[in-house]
Amino acid sequence: MPYYIGDVIKEERKLVIRTPEKFRETGVDVRLHVIAEEVDADKGVVRLSDGTALNYDILALGMGTSPFVPKIPGLDLEGVFTLKTLNDATRIKAFIKDSPCRKAVIVGAGFIGMEMSEALKTRGVDTHVVDLMPRPAVRWDPEFSKVILEELTRQGVAFSPNTGIVAIDKGKGYRLHVATDDGGMEADMVLIAIGVRPNVKLAADMGLQIGKTGAIQVDFSQRTSKEGIYAVGDCCEVYHRVSKRWAHVPLGDIANKQGRVAGRNIGGGSIIFPGVVGAQSFKVFHCEAAATGLDEAEALNCGYHPVSNIIWGNAIARSMPGEKRVGVKLVADRATGKLLGAQAVGTTGAVNRINVLSCALWSGISVDEIGYFDFAYAPPFSPAWDPIHIAAQELLRKL
Amino acid sequence: MPYYIGDVIKEERKLVIRTPEKFRETGVDVRLHVIAEEVDADKGVVRLSDGTALNYDILALGMGTSPFVPKIPGLDLEGVFTLKTLNDATRIKAFIKDSPCRKAVIVGAGFIGMEMSEALKTRGVDTHVVDLMPRPAVRWDPEFSKVILEELTRQGVAFSPNTGIVAIDKGKGYRLHVATDDGGMEADMVLIAIGVRPNVKLAADMGLQIGKTGAIQVDFSQRTSKEGIYAVGDCCEVYHRVSKRWAHVPLGDIANKQGRVAGRNIGGGSIIFPGVVGAQSFKVFHCEAAATGLDEAEALNCGYHPVSNIIWGNAIARSMPGEKRVGVKLVADRATGKLLGAQAVGTTGAVNRINVLSCALWSGISVDEIGYFDFAYAPPFSPAWDPIHIAAQELLRKL
Repeated sequence: MPYYIGDVIKEERKLVIRTPEKFRETGVDVRLHVIAEEVDADKGVVRLSDGTALNYDILALGMGTSPFVPKIPGLDLEGVFTLKTLNDATRIKAFIKDSPCRKAVIVGAGFIGMEMSEALKTRGVDTHVVDLMPRPAVRWDPEFSKVILEELTRQGVAFSPNTGIVAIDKGKGYRLHVATDDGGMEADMVLIAIGVRPNVKLAADMGLQIGKTGAIQVDFSQRTSKEGIYAVGDCCEVYHRVSKRWAHVPLGDIANKQGRVAGRNIGGGSIIFPGVVGAQSFKVFHCEAAATGLDEAEALNCGYHPVSNIIWGNAIARSMPGEKRVGVKLVADRATGKLLGAQAVGTTGAVNRINVLSCALWSGISVDEIGYFDFAYAPPFSPAWDPIHIAAQELLRKL
Repeated sequence: MPYYIGDVIKEERKLVIRTPEKFRETGVDVRLHVIAEEVDADKGVVRLSDGTALNYDILALGMGTSPFVPKIPGLDLEGVFTLKTLNDATRIKAFIKDSPCRKAVIVGAGFIGMEMSEALKTRGVDTHVVDLMPRPAVRWDPEFSKVILEELTRQGVAFSPNTGIVAIDKGKGYRLHVATDDGGMEADMVLIAIGVRPNVKLAADMGLQIGKTGAIQVDFSQRTSKEGIYAVGDCCEVYHRVSKRWAHVPLGDIANKQGRVAGRNIGGGSIIFPGVVGAQSFKVFHCEAAATGLDEAEALNCGYHPVSNIIWGNAIARSMPGEKRVGVKLVADRATGKLLGAQAVGTTGAVNRINVLSCALWSGISVDEIGYFDFAYAPPFSPAWDPIHIAAQELLRKL
């Protein structure tokens, strides 16, 4: 069940989780709070941390990822968090409510860092984001990262670029002191959000092939390298339809789809997971950021010949009141004229456009066709020449 | 230059139109308020209503459409309008401002009728829409028309289904009386918006081929049947990529594209217009309606084997506050498993989804792939399983 982890913190909402009892009614034996410590793949046995051994004919692995944490002292201090599970979210929520939490430092300006900066700030917590990189959301073009940074600044969230943390200590005016490579700052709470790593130890121990990405190798049916063993979700790889390589893209919608594909195959169906194009997005305050496919560096790495451009347009027709600026970046291959990737940023209309371009990537459409795509045009929704058309036609002149 | 005709009426906005003088500065001779009365295609001469004759090597026709009006008495009375040109819009606007205009009857519940019902109502004019059909926006499924009707009702716009008008007369309490086939009603203004017909007389007179649709026949380069003569926009046909037939789809974004294609070919370029998939949309108050491709009847008519379904979902993730109901209808071909068409209705998120599905139609994607499309998922923008996924997977079971 997908949930929006920032949202759990921002809003007073209850999530309904199905209990093991509920599962049992439907004949499914769900055991929580146990760890699968070892798998004997030859004998088909899983040994659990509570001492029991479970026999299986089919094994499905969905072990997810773990937050990556730097090797620094002070991670065990009260007020230092990572955010991966629903429990993490409720713990953070309780902390904000019960402890004096006047200020938070978020380490990492990726998806989680951005979403949490909004969640914490909205909860009245003074928020400061630090990142090793020179700008937030580095997956996006510098021109778009700038727009994201401007939105952070407008909303009163501080950002320190090029900043690594070296230690966390007890603070003086606040609960904690965060020492960085060029100074330090105090805060009541520190959130480490610098990425995740796939949980593959169990899989590696039982001799499953691990892919180059570090995640479990699977095929289009979600089968691992050993018969009868499937893997799904953030712990395994996924086929990237643009790079034509197996990638590690730990996102909730992909995990959902892989689970469905594995389940249907295990149940006797014949179905494949056709892969992804790398579509992703986040919202931070009044800014949408979305991206799909490859950026120039990734494209070069695949042996493509990337050419790119950025245009700024209006998400709605010029004749409509109010302007809604949206930036669109396209990356195409000079050799084939095909689209390779796209990014968009704006107060609205960025995600929609990336979804359309994701569909274009899915089918391998060339930039000249994108310049004439047929949209459901009406002035409240787009100009007659959508920013997508304009970006494609402009890029075509560079190809 | 596209403009939103309803918007001209609703808002106090100025449109900047480039004058003939401005064009002349760039070496283009623009003559307004003259009619091209006759073309001698053999000699390459256009005779204008002001008596002049213009020689040409290349002729481009962009004559647009005219509003269709029923053959009833009273159309010439003051307060009776059609709405096609910017002049029509400014005339209506002046009329509302200067005359007592307490009530309007709109004849026709298509795009223009719907947009104008919002524009007039927002201007404080009591508005009543009548249509020969049993429901508004009949291009949409009855289940979706119902949602549109509910929105009209919620906003205080009256709708009379199955109603034809037979005459317009002077009224008693109001300026005009509209006689219908089952009674009548009074209003200060009547807007006839029952569709348009392509302006092809000049083209037919000069011997150009007219297509089965009644619009001028063109090829992928916008060339007509006579050498050196191009046609673009609402007066000509367009290739429909799903029906694989030439259709008449008089919409502003298509006209823009055709103009560009003709212009580049005339200028010595080599470019084709790749056609349309039938994407269209309108907004009426807080309701988005969008459609693309074929409906069941059109699909049957083409020899396809249509199967369809409708699902209702949420435009955003369940974990987000507030529900945004969106309905998605898919039509697919049982023979090939390919998508043939789609419709959507909702307060938000309908047009976006139809744009994605238009891209799917553009490339001829099958319903099983649509069920696993990769979107830029984040909870503020969609559920992890988007209504598109759910609709496609449900439809797949019927194929």
